[in-house]
Amino acid sequence: MRALRRAAVPIDPRAPWREALGRIADGAAALLRGRGVVGIGVGCAGCVDASRGVLRFSPNLPRWRRVPCAEFLSARLGLPCVVDNDVNMMALGEQRHGAARGARNVCCVAIGTGVGGGLILDGKLHRGASMSAGELGHIPVEPDGIECPCGGRGCLERYVGKDGILRLARLAMRGKGVPAGGLTPERLAAAARSGVPGARRAWEDAGRYLGLGLVGLVNLLNPDVIVVGGGISAAGGLLLGPARRVVRERALAIPARHVRIVRSAFGQDSGAIGAASEAFAALHG
Amino acid sequence: MRALRRAAVPIDPRAPWREALGRIADGAAALLRGRGVVGIGVGCAGCVDASRGVLRFSPNLPRWRRVPCAEFLSARLGLPCVVDNDVNMMALGEQRHGAARGARNVCCVAIGTGVGGGLILDGKLHRGASMSAGELGHIPVEPDGIECPCGGRGCLERYVGKDGILRLARLAMRGKGVPAGGLTPERLAAAARSGVPGARRAWEDAGRYLGLGLVGLVNLLNPDVIVVGGGISAAGGLLLGPARRVVRERALAIPARHVRIVRSAFGQDSGAIGAASEAFAALHG
Repeated sequence: MRALRRAAVPIDPRAPWREALGRIADGAAALLRGRGVVGIGVGCAGCVDASRGVLRFSPNLPRWRRVPCAEFLSARLGLPCVVDNDVNMMALGEQRHGAARGARNVCCVAIGTGVGGGLILDGKLHRGASMSAGELGHIPVEPDGIECPCGGRGCLERYVGKDGILRLARLAMRGKGVPAGGLTPERLAAAARSGVPGARRAWEDAGRYLGLGLVGLVNLLNPDVIVVGGGISAAGGLLLGPARRVVRERALAIPARHVRIVRSAFGQDSGAIGAASEAFAALHG
Repeated sequence: MRALRRAAVPIDPRAPWREALGRIADGAAALLRGRGVVGIGVGCAGCVDASRGVLRFSPNLPRWRRVPCAEFLSARLGLPCVVDNDVNMMALGEQRHGAARGARNVCCVAIGTGVGGGLILDGKLHRGASMSAGELGHIPVEPDGIECPCGGRGCLERYVGKDGILRLARLAMRGKGVPAGGLTPERLAAAARSGVPGARRAWEDAGRYLGLGLVGLVNLLNPDVIVVGGGISAAGGLLLGPARRVVRERALAIPARHVRIVRSAFGQDSGAIGAASEAFAALHG
């Protein structure tokens, strides 16, 4: 399973949704032309009613409310369309074809600007009572921690999402004579690998927080596999090493011995691969 | 649905399991005599392989390892027998007949000496990959918190289980001129209701920790109902009031608005009622 073609379509998050989604449809139409495509699968960050293909809301697209994505794209592109949360699609992709192939209990964590999650429990996507399950980024890991735009405090996302890691880096590198300005997660990973003082420590701090969140997940859900994806997961062992150590040391022995904590098999493509697989499943049901 | 007869059989936790379980079987035999009972349901604290009715281990019964409870009791009592974790049985009882009747996504928390959990997700008991799911008491709520016998640190159980609450009470009542010796959760609840300085504060501190654990649960699993049972839940609003407030203030809006946090409908009987209902279900498939 792999991506054949890719395109990125920039949109203005403040534009009306019809305009932005119209641009995305145009971009998709150009990709699809003459390719024998039979269906469309879409993953969206945010809260999705997958049964109707409606994006209920998205924290990053404040003007998108109750957007009938599936209906709109299907009409524009003349193809059946399924829509779900992006990390749910990632979980399906990894469980059907990737790093968690064949496992019945899979937790996916996508770490980028935000931290999202998708849960496959007993072989099925767990959507929850009001279709908002899986928000792993908002497990509290510090009782009096940093305020989160979600309304909570000390959420995992505040420590391992992009801004959280860069904040930990500024703390760890302070007074070490290293300018932390212009830092990105990629540069921070390179700095850690080349021994820049404090850089490895920043990843260890972030990995420890990730581990704390995963301890709760492991003890509560007893998964076979935890798949870590998203841009930040490119740091690999710098982040996952300390997270695995915390889980080994602090989670209950039976579920901790059972679980594998691995990187996503498809990197940034796992959401798209899951969405494609879901589009197929909808056609062939 | 209600309990018709009750009996308590004291056992020595250090005795060999055959001796202790033999006593329990004798106690049950006396209860059952002449009553037209058609099956036995058992809830055990610990890690149970419900498909075979085997108690794999129990933290409170260190000499019980891989005990074939269902086989042993069935042979002794001449009746079919089902065995599961006690809080799983509680979750089934509350979901089929009690405080979570009809809900498809139910989390049960049993707070006593320890803190256990049982999860019904999409209408089915979630057992996890190695049958140890639901350990809500071991969600970390303090990153550098109190050491837990489970091997972790800062686990919810250390703050809202019996010893945890009494420790919070000693802290809250210190210097208030109230002797904290001889304190029990029942006495602490009575003290809080009659305005003893510090006593209400202790429940608020414990309720806040419970709320933190539930924020993670609500954001991750998006349940319809959280049922709180076990002996400590008799404190009612003293504990649940602050927990509900923390969930309302700190969990994501969609799942927080949806969830109900309620006390168990059957108190100490909900495990037994769930076990009875599971015994029926096993007979009538």
